[in-house]
Amino acid sequence: MIFSAIDGLKDMTTFLNITMSLDGFVAGPNQTLEEPLGEGGEQLHEWIVGLESWRAQHGHAGGESNADADLVRETNERTGAFVMGRRMFSSGSGPWEDDPKANGWWGDDPPFDGPVFVVTHHAREPLVLGTTTYTFVDGIEEAIRQAREAAGDKDVQISGGGSVAQQALNAGLLDELHIHVAPQVLGGGVRLFESADPGTLELVRAVESPRVAHLTYRVG
Amino acid sequence: MIFSAIDGLKDMTTFLNITMSLDGFVAGPNQTLEEPLGEGGEQLHEWIVGLESWRAQHGHAGGESNADADLVRETNERTGAFVMGRRMFSSGSGPWEDDPKANGWWGDDPPFDGPVFVVTHHAREPLVLGTTTYTFVDGIEEAIRQAREAAGDKDVQISGGGSVAQQALNAGLLDELHIHVAPQVLGGGVRLFESADPGTLELVRAVESPRVAHLTYRVG
Repeated sequence: MIFSAIDGLKDMTTFLNITMSLDGFVAGPNQTLEEPLGEGGEQLHEWIVGLESWRAQHGHAGGESNADADLVRETNERTGAFVMGRRMFSSGSGPWEDDPKANGWWGDDPPFDGPVFVVTHHAREPLVLGTTTYTFVDGIEEAIRQAREAAGDKDVQISGGGSVAQQALNAGLLDELHIHVAPQVLGGGVRLFESADPGTLELVRAVESPRVAHLTYRVG
Repeated sequence: MIFSAIDGLKDMTTFLNITMSLDGFVAGPNQTLEEPLGEGGEQLHEWIVGLESWRAQHGHAGGESNADADLVRETNERTGAFVMGRRMFSSGSGPWEDDPKANGWWGDDPPFDGPVFVVTHHAREPLVLGTTTYTFVDGIEEAIRQAREAAGDKDVQISGGGSVAQQALNAGLLDELHIHVAPQVLGGGVRLFESADPGTLELVRAVESPRVAHLTYRVG
């Protein structure tokens, strides 16, 4: 919506999709190769890994069918392109040749099944793995612009992590925030709203599940 | 529940009832006599002031009937006694004789309509205003103990502010957290979970309203 007037593209939504602890963290402290989400950060995502829609996205059968699973499926179906930060894609922040996870955390057949735009200052040719294409772009605004072009008639999902989410919030590039509030208090780590000012928010949806509260906000 | 084993009282719930910004603040920065909730803190409570159940509690007719109003009424009806901090009751932290709001922010006929236990190091005789009795107690644990005795067959509500909420969380004195997540990002102020560790939380209810997400957690 924000872009529509300037890029001539159809009405399309750019939304943040991220899990946050009740005390506002999207990753725990001390992120490492072994614990890329920091101490306690993995717990935040416990709600999602057993769901049938998440498992299906990752090429597995089975799993739970519930309100969470429906919501994950709905989010997958509306996403035409993803934008993520360098750390959500891989382990390093330096040049690619120094990165032990240069092809990403997500394996040889990543679950994104389409275009992913990775925000990084380090230039690199696109990387095709399975049905996922990673394109490396310098700057959040340019990454979202390219994602909007690639998304077809679907929407653009900003998947995290915290830094890219903050940049998108502060640049006013988001139409919606989909925040999954996990019932954990981490006490430290990366805050979603550290020095971020999203402007006026309107709560448009709240979905209860046994594990997490799904809150959707429209950015005014 | 936590107390039941030790005080011999019936099964009774001690719950925190507080509004928090999406970035985790229960008051804004720079609290003053004019802005007791700090800069931007008053906005957090905009969702409640127009509701018919809140207005009725404050002796006024009219107001909005909606999911928020039902929830406020339900919370009022289950509350047999309140516990609050010195700053939620009045303006100062020093001795009472120095406090320009020594009889409280809440006027000559406060909306609590029953026993209120104010946590303070400064001793003082009980204060009766209208149908509300304020009792001044040194220490959160003793305040909750006295509130449980006073609550009859109802529950004990911890109403805030941030410091008393943190003390109750850290002392493991809460059975439930009722957190009203307001769609604001304050960017500074008093954090609900600053250095607080509530233990294991289970989301037991999420209620959507046009203005706020009402999340209820059971403390494990």
